Amino acid sequence: MSFAIQIADVLSAAEQLKGAAVRTPLLEFDTLNERVGRRVMVKFEGAQHTGSFKFRGAYNRLSRLDDTQRQAGVVAWSSGNHAQGVAAAAKRLGIRATIVMPADAPANKLANTRRLGAEVVTYDRFNESREAIAAGIAEERGAVRVPPFDDPYIMAGQGTVGLEIIEQSADLGVDLAAVLVCCGGGGLTAGVATAVKGLRPHIDVYCVEPQTFDDTARSLVAGTRQKVSPEARSICDALMSPSPGELTFPINQALLSGGLTVSEDEVKDAMRFAFQSMKLVIEPGGAVALAALLNDRLPVGDSHVAIVVSGANADAELYAAILRGEV
Amino acid sequence: MSFAIQIADVLSAAEQLKGAAVRTPLLEFDTLNERVGRRVMVKFEGAQHTGSFKFRGAYNRLSRLDDTQRQAGVVAWSSGNHAQGVAAAAKRLGIRATIVMPADAPANKLANTRRLGAEVVTYDRFNESREAIAAGIAEERGAVRVPPFDDPYIMAGQGTVGLEIIEQSADLGVDLAAVLVCCGGGGLTAGVATAVKGLRPHIDVYCVEPQTFDDTARSLVAGTRQKVSPEARSICDALMSPSPGELTFPINQALLSGGLTVSEDEVKDAMRFAFQSMKLVIEPGGAVALAALLNDRLPVGDSHVAIVVSGANADAELYAAILRGEV
Repeated sequence: MSFAIQIADVLSAAEQLKGAAVRTPLLEFDTLNERVGRRVMVKFEGAQHTGSFKFRGAYNRLSRLDDTQRQAGVVAWSSGNHAQGVAAAAKRLGIRATIVMPADAPANKLANTRRLGAEVVTYDRFNESREAIAAGIAEERGAVRVPPFDDPYIMAGQGTVGLEIIEQSADLGVDLAAVLVCCGGGGLTAGVATAVKGLRPHIDVYCVEPQTFDDTARSLVAGTRQKVSPEARSICDALMSPSPGELTFPINQALLSGGLTVSEDEVKDAMRFAFQSMKLVIEPGGAVALAALLNDRLPVGDSHVAIVVSGANADAELYAAILRGEV
Repeated sequence: MSFAIQIADVLSAAEQLKGAAVRTPLLEFDTLNERVGRRVMVKFEGAQHTGSFKFRGAYNRLSRLDDTQRQAGVVAWSSGNHAQGVAAAAKRLGIRATIVMPADAPANKLANTRRLGAEVVTYDRFNESREAIAAGIAEERGAVRVPPFDDPYIMAGQGTVGLEIIEQSADLGVDLAAVLVCCGGGGLTAGVATAVKGLRPHIDVYCVEPQTFDDTARSLVAGTRQKVSPEARSICDALMSPSPGELTFPINQALLSGGLTVSEDEVKDAMRFAFQSMKLVIEPGGAVALAALLNDRLPVGDSHVAIVVSGANADAELYAAILRGEV
């Protein structure tokens, strides 16, 4: 079988990211361990540049461009975190970036992307095609398209999250039985699964999605790429991908032990738990793996697990409303 | 000069805490570095057991009790974080703990202390003496008093925060010029100063207080222990100590480079900054060192500094109000 990336690509991405990306902490909390009855290692990508794992893939991709490509600049489309990741990587490498973002993306994500020096072009999430808009810009300017997940360098970059989980848990002397990863288009999941299964084939890797965007979970069962309804909505703006990626799905299909889903209320509860007991800010999409764990979606047992908290760019207003139980 | 603790006591506390306390992460954020124009290492004690540094001193103190003392139990008084630290240490060591807490302490701190198995006795912060109440309980039950700061084992335990800052910044290859510590009664400050000056005498250590509870800053200038007004109030409930400690002040007087103060608004701004740019939950009292840095209280320069985020037990309602700018 031929996959878009192999473990060697993740190891190469790790070399590329050395000194550029943050080696985020792997944290452990008594309160969480007691609540779920097992040791849980929490990979906190909120501490990554731009507050999510997305910088990793973006930097790995952009740092491989040749001189001609660098001069033409890049164009990306994103609900927000990929946008910021690409903008930050482009700024660091001195490359011009244009980002196509939904007009209803959280205000802080739009503002942060602009603050990082990128040009932002907005579109209507439900009536326009971001890919088409990006393609137009790419053609007009000769800019290189940087997709959010369906790209080998992007996937390999995100995979360094999994590499670090393996290295850091080994440093702590913790034998992991499972890793839970938040899943939108599946780039982070495919990268992490490639790293984890490449180094420790016995560890189970599960992806976690919101119930309304359960395309990967259903696709894993069906054996082919499934879509969610165009009417689907979720508080998890970072995970609203309509279907698994062309390149990500074959890897996830081969390597994952299953797809878990959580409800909107479970996500909000997980965010409140993180505030109260972990002292971490987590955005909705970054909280689904934690939510799955808190709600016993994993097979029963006391084996040690790791979860990825993939992002922390929560809107202050929404976050306050969730803390107060208003939403 | 004879101090209550020396560097050897902090090193001994570190041995005692091995495997019991969390070695909290030393974090760095591009956003913070850019904002203040220097590299800043953030020691996040929100990741410590019970969400503040207080577990360190409490565990160091309680683990030194002899069998007779262990059977009699312990009594402590606290606005909340010391309470939780003592309760958690007592639980871990199988010792009965009674905690005297202000009736108006944040609800989450009262609830968490009870949840940790301690008996909570409340009092009126402004009209009753918590020391007298604790002394009564100590006499009645033969329980050992565990003061919040004026105790060598407590101070040495808190000092392990400074030890870890030195070790972790060395691991990161960062030469620190200054360390900023949140200051209430001065136990954390004295412990950290003892560790930092003991290992790296050239590093400046500053304490940071709310403007309304600036007793240590004024005492450092006056050369004798000063008190704050009995009418003083602050959002920083963890730092409302009326005067420096008997044991802590001589150390802080000898070792500190100065005392910095911040306004209530600066504290709230720092909490918002931490939410937005660091993705960390910080309680008001834990945010004063960050607030001092964000508001240029340090002598100008681009040298590297470390700040202690001492606690993260923020009340959800207050936190939401601060995020929304309602208070």
